[in-house]
Amino acid sequence: MSGGKAEPALFVIFGGTGDLAKRKLLPELARALHAGGLENDVHVVGVAPTAEFDDASYYEFVRGCLEQSIHSDAASQVSPERIHYHTIGDGTPADYAALGKHLDTIETEHELEGNRVYYLALPPPVFPLAIRGLGEAGMNQGRGWRRLVIEKPFGKDLETAQALNNVLHRYFDEKQVYRIDHYLGKDTVQNLLVLRFANSLLESAWSRDRVHSVQITACESIGVGTRAGYYDQSGCMKDMIQNHLMQVLTLVAMEVPSAFEAEAIRYEKVKVLRRISEIKPEDVVFGQYTTGRVGNEKVPGYLDEPNVPDDSKTETFVAMKLMVDSWRWSGVPFYLWAGKRLPYRSSRIAVRFKPAPVSLFEVVGGRRAERECLTDVLVIKLQPDEGFSLHVDVKRPGEPFALQEVPLSFDYDEAFEKIPGAYQTLLLDVLEGNQTLFVHADEVEGSWKVLAPVLNAPPEPELYRAGEWGPKEAAKLAIPESHLWQDAPKEDA
Amino acid sequence: MSGGKAEPALFVIFGGTGDLAKRKLLPELARALHAGGLENDVHVVGVAPTAEFDDASYYEFVRGCLEQSIHSDAASQVSPERIHYHTIGDGTPADYAALGKHLDTIETEHELEGNRVYYLALPPPVFPLAIRGLGEAGMNQGRGWRRLVIEKPFGKDLETAQALNNVLHRYFDEKQVYRIDHYLGKDTVQNLLVLRFANSLLESAWSRDRVHSVQITACESIGVGTRAGYYDQSGCMKDMIQNHLMQVLTLVAMEVPSAFEAEAIRYEKVKVLRRISEIKPEDVVFGQYTTGRVGNEKVPGYLDEPNVPDDSKTETFVAMKLMVDSWRWSGVPFYLWAGKRLPYRSSRIAVRFKPAPVSLFEVVGGRRAERECLTDVLVIKLQPDEGFSLHVDVKRPGEPFALQEVPLSFDYDEAFEKIPGAYQTLLLDVLEGNQTLFVHADEVEGSWKVLAPVLNAPPEPELYRAGEWGPKEAAKLAIPESHLWQDAPKEDA
Repeated sequence: MSGGKAEPALFVIFGGTGDLAKRKLLPELARALHAGGLENDVHVVGVAPTAEFDDASYYEFVRGCLEQSIHSDAASQVSPERIHYHTIGDGTPADYAALGKHLDTIETEHELEGNRVYYLALPPPVFPLAIRGLGEAGMNQGRGWRRLVIEKPFGKDLETAQALNNVLHRYFDEKQVYRIDHYLGKDTVQNLLVLRFANSLLESAWSRDRVHSVQITACESIGVGTRAGYYDQSGCMKDMIQNHLMQVLTLVAMEVPSAFEAEAIRYEKVKVLRRISEIKPEDVVFGQYTTGRVGNEKVPGYLDEPNVPDDSKTETFVAMKLMVDSWRWSGVPFYLWAGKRLPYRSSRIAVRFKPAPVSLFEVVGGRRAERECLTDVLVIKLQPDEGFSLHVDVKRPGEPFALQEVPLSFDYDEAFEKIPGAYQTLLLDVLEGNQTLFVHADEVEGSWKVLAPVLNAPPEPELYRAGEWGPKEAAKLAIPESHLWQDAPKEDA
Repeated sequence: MSGGKAEPALFVIFGGTGDLAKRKLLPELARALHAGGLENDVHVVGVAPTAEFDDASYYEFVRGCLEQSIHSDAASQVSPERIHYHTIGDGTPADYAALGKHLDTIETEHELEGNRVYYLALPPPVFPLAIRGLGEAGMNQGRGWRRLVIEKPFGKDLETAQALNNVLHRYFDEKQVYRIDHYLGKDTVQNLLVLRFANSLLESAWSRDRVHSVQITACESIGVGTRAGYYDQSGCMKDMIQNHLMQVLTLVAMEVPSAFEAEAIRYEKVKVLRRISEIKPEDVVFGQYTTGRVGNEKVPGYLDEPNVPDDSKTETFVAMKLMVDSWRWSGVPFYLWAGKRLPYRSSRIAVRFKPAPVSLFEVVGGRRAERECLTDVLVIKLQPDEGFSLHVDVKRPGEPFALQEVPLSFDYDEAFEKIPGAYQTLLLDVLEGNQTLFVHADEVEGSWKVLAPVLNAPPEPELYRAGEWGPKEAAKLAIPESHLWQDAPKEDA
């Protein structure tokens, strides 16, 4: 979903030596610049607290990241004169003034027009400091455009999200702000809109008249690993549901936008959030994994993971039912289902259509058919494979007469040579000024608002054995992933 | 589509030593008996004019047919005591009386209950003689059931079809008559009804509201070969359109039947035929192939084939447009398209859905998309492969924004171990008394009636080079098969 043309710019990374920059951002930026033909037009400035690097050694650092993640060819194309380093110190007003001067100097030296991306690859508590620093130093405006990119979490509840948005909007217009939810960068997620609005067969069935239910799942087979410090404070609701799954829900449920562009699409997504009914306590199940087996591996329970408090009530699994009380969706349940230490990794959307009004094939030739018709299901696979399958009933060949469900399927990987990574897509969009795949302030706040009743009075997590499909209590709310019309399970990569 | 239980019976083959019996009927009967667990319950009586065989040598003949077509195991399971031979001579009343006595004797000897299938594997001109012979000798009724199977062509126009039905109905009730159209025995054709009536997503779109057009094609790559004696009298209209394609059309267009059984389904099919509007001369294109290349082979034109008269005007290709003026289909064109010496063999139904009402993706991010949205198409493949594909538009991964049509597909062969042959299915249905997949007298006459205006004033055939998609005049009527949303072409088996 490209916007305008990408222009020469400074790409300023706060946290330029951190883990995110190293593993994701620098390699994906290199890919995005290559894909957009921008290799010679964008200068990178790494910003970090200490003077551990200078321009030359930061250049070596960047090359090292690219060599590990892409290949040495790409790394060798990076020119040292387009890689810069800046020490921000404690981030005092004077420190930001100095940064401003440094950036001006780089722009002058390289005849750049003043376009800048500020990418906050920082821990969330530091966001306000950096935003204020940039704003007070007058770097929020300038000769060219100024764009600010921030990563989730966008607050940890409605109040903190509103506070963060208030700080942002004091210095930056919403049009300058790019909130990254990497789910939105996936081609299949973007494709959801194409699938819906370019294919009349699907669009005509996409409403309460024809849809029985929608289930959105994000299953992980991994546990919390070394991330307990973050995860135990967050839990599955804030880690997966509030952002990724709610974003996917809005894309599934939204009305057709007036145009295929950021403002129109984001407006429709916000409308969906506003029509979600208050969640009832009985429509939410939390879970927490105990010791078990995933695949062939024996794995520890959540409470036995490093840095998890013995009495943690943090949920590692959520199943919940939402009702979108809009003209289109009234009466159709949306099930969200996410968790860790489930049997395998799988994120997908299953749109289940209503059954045929009459079961014509229940009795054929005096014999009862083996089973009644299933409903049709459209499965949109987000990861680890991207693709779709439409599950329909056909006649099994031969005698006796029997129906069988089969998938009509399409795999992105098989059909296309390579799919760009989510970050690559999103970084190029930032440089092109296209906000379609970024999360608007109203969406962030709308999502927190929807989930507030659950977050304010979270249910006790039910236990489930690692390697099972969540606690058994969840089955009353949704169809276990194991029945979710899937192809053969894939192992984690 | 099984009916009642199959019962012990005599299977009497008129033309028991002919080509059809040898190549198709005997091997497929063996398969049907095996599939139905009837190996020990059915006796075969080969009937032929001369005394060239007796029971023992006919047994060897049958074994030979099975060994060639199936495998020696199946052949070795045929017991000589269940294979019989009868010489019918000229088919005088006395000859038929003798046959009756012989059959009675076999039934008495083997304690059979009098159930009989009379299979007329005869040239069409001989049909009335055999039917009268059976009827006048009183073999049309008896202790058990009596069923008569006949092969196409069912007449060569409305009048001859009516005359044949009159002879049939003088001696046999329509419930005793099994008119074979082997297209109906294909699992995919039967599956069409399951696909339509078990899958609400498709059924809800299956009308003039959502369907743009329907195209039914039967393309052959072979020429007339050694069959000119028959084919030059018949032509593509009578060889393919009147039976196979019209049958498929009625299955695509019919309303939901009151039950999944023969009478209800055949009633709905007849209703479709009654609502087809009179075909206009400008809606029909005939073609005849000239010398050309099919694949890598240079092939002769139709007039150069053995036994084709130099001045033959017989059509080897037909494209035509039909309108089904029913509540459901008013305004939706049905295109039929069939011919010989086309680039490859392919029979399929393409249901093309209407495009999305608004082209949301024409302009994205200020750039015009590479092409407009195509409509969605459901392709049902009948041969050489059986399966379906639903062709939808997706986003091509990466930049710039572009749509691409991809198939969601399902292949019968890949999903199921083996598909029964059409004859196998149909022969078992005869033994089980299930007429669902056989053609009712009203359907035969209805189809001839629809085509009468064309047959009474056939257009001059336009020439097309062998290996091309018919004459260029046909393109105005339908979409050439080459554009018909197909997977990679398959070579003739």
